[in-house]
Amino acid sequence: MTKFDEATQAIRVDETTYDVCLDPGYAIGGPLNGGYLMAVLLRAVVDASPHEHPVSTTVQFLKAPAPGPARVHVEQLKAGRTAAFTRATLVRDGVAHLEALVTTATLPTASSVSYSGRPPLAMPPLERCRRLPDPKPESGMTLNAQMELFFDPPTIGWLTGEPTGRPESRAYFRMAEPQDPDPFVLALAVDALPPVVFSAGARGWAPTVDLTWHLRALPAPGWLTLYGSGRLVADGWFDEEVEVWDSEGKLVAQSRQLARVGRG
Amino acid sequence: MTKFDEATQAIRVDETTYDVCLDPGYAIGGPLNGGYLMAVLLRAVVDASPHEHPVSTTVQFLKAPAPGPARVHVEQLKAGRTAAFTRATLVRDGVAHLEALVTTATLPTASSVSYSGRPPLAMPPLERCRRLPDPKPESGMTLNAQMELFFDPPTIGWLTGEPTGRPESRAYFRMAEPQDPDPFVLALAVDALPPVVFSAGARGWAPTVDLTWHLRALPAPGWLTLYGSGRLVADGWFDEEVEVWDSEGKLVAQSRQLARVGRG
Repeated sequence: MTKFDEATQAIRVDETTYDVCLDPGYAIGGPLNGGYLMAVLLRAVVDASPHEHPVSTTVQFLKAPAPGPARVHVEQLKAGRTAAFTRATLVRDGVAHLEALVTTATLPTASSVSYSGRPPLAMPPLERCRRLPDPKPESGMTLNAQMELFFDPPTIGWLTGEPTGRPESRAYFRMAEPQDPDPFVLALAVDALPPVVFSAGARGWAPTVDLTWHLRALPAPGWLTLYGSGRLVADGWFDEEVEVWDSEGKLVAQSRQLARVGRG
Repeated sequence: MTKFDEATQAIRVDETTYDVCLDPGYAIGGPLNGGYLMAVLLRAVVDASPHEHPVSTTVQFLKAPAPGPARVHVEQLKAGRTAAFTRATLVRDGVAHLEALVTTATLPTASSVSYSGRPPLAMPPLERCRRLPDPKPESGMTLNAQMELFFDPPTIGWLTGEPTGRPESRAYFRMAEPQDPDPFVLALAVDALPPVVFSAGARGWAPTVDLTWHLRALPAPGWLTLYGSGRLVADGWFDEEVEVWDSEGKLVAQSRQLARVGRG
């Protein structure tokens, strides 16, 4: 069992209740990372489902939970032969923090593709990509140590005062420990990039209001590539889309989140 | 009150319950159109919310309801100053048919855009676009009479045996009766195109498993333009994205649905 598997473990209490322990190692400053919280919640949902894979997940982020013991409540809405529908709530100290609708299905080990678009943009080779500087210990950015991200340099130009002027962020991604990507790692990956609006000149805490992602195929071992972009920044709201491609050139996950532009 | 306003009306019974009447005029063969059902559900959600606009909606389509009386149950999960979170369920004959998570907020009348991407593709002028042939009365496609769709010709080439080979569908859209677009019309619009996979060579009933859409701005009066596309068709699943642009060239709605490829 890897550190990530352990940090996202959900222990079955009864048919509708799972005990989890939110790990302080996945924090982005004060709050825990949304992708990590989704992974925890999905562990419970998948365990309770007759199907194996979370093909569609929508999460509303009601409140940022502190690390520590929490519970996931699952309610089966309908279970069919092709797909099952589940409502799930992450509860900490008796208060709902994440509310989710999840569709589970069973994807084949080898994907059979009828049509595939191309990756949205060409990435430079990994050795020409750049890492973010290590966060200061007092920043509380513990998440950074769990994963390796190598960025397409212009998309972190905002770090040195040179944003591209477009909402975008692209990087190679893998877990810091030896861990093959799986659907739970993908839940982390779709929310692992810095907010795409940083590249459009915005700064500060950009809270996600809700995030939907689709698992399209089981990822091959190796590096993932994350292509983050946005279509519109208006009235204090922005969308962030992330496509995740695996080492074999397959589109394995698609996400879109609606978030607030930070005031920082 | 327009026919559409009437067909989507939700009458408050108490704080958490609304009576609705599902109109047979919005059918696509046997089932009712998913966008119409979302509009009905959203009427109840918006009425129960302290905010005015459904900025994010995710619906799981559990079961296709027949026309007739139904109920929407709403549960307020959290109401903040910027956004409110609601769970809603459409119930017919005591059975849940649609399950939804909706975020409401209040958008300004005049949108203030910080960044906007461009429309995904150029559309020919309206007079060079084509309508679908009128459906046979026995087909049960009553939805078609409620709206006007003028298609970019290649994207309905599948009708005459000439699919483009890519999942795509693009059209100008307005209601058949005089009705300015509003957020409820947009709920209909994001699910109004024929499945994008028809253009990639697939046929038959393509059931939506779930659909998420974001309202990004209040639409100006006049025609809307719908840009539908897909990224991946694999293992019997496909994604369909629709961007809705208004007559003033603003991106007003974005949707993505995960659906099953038909076996027709």
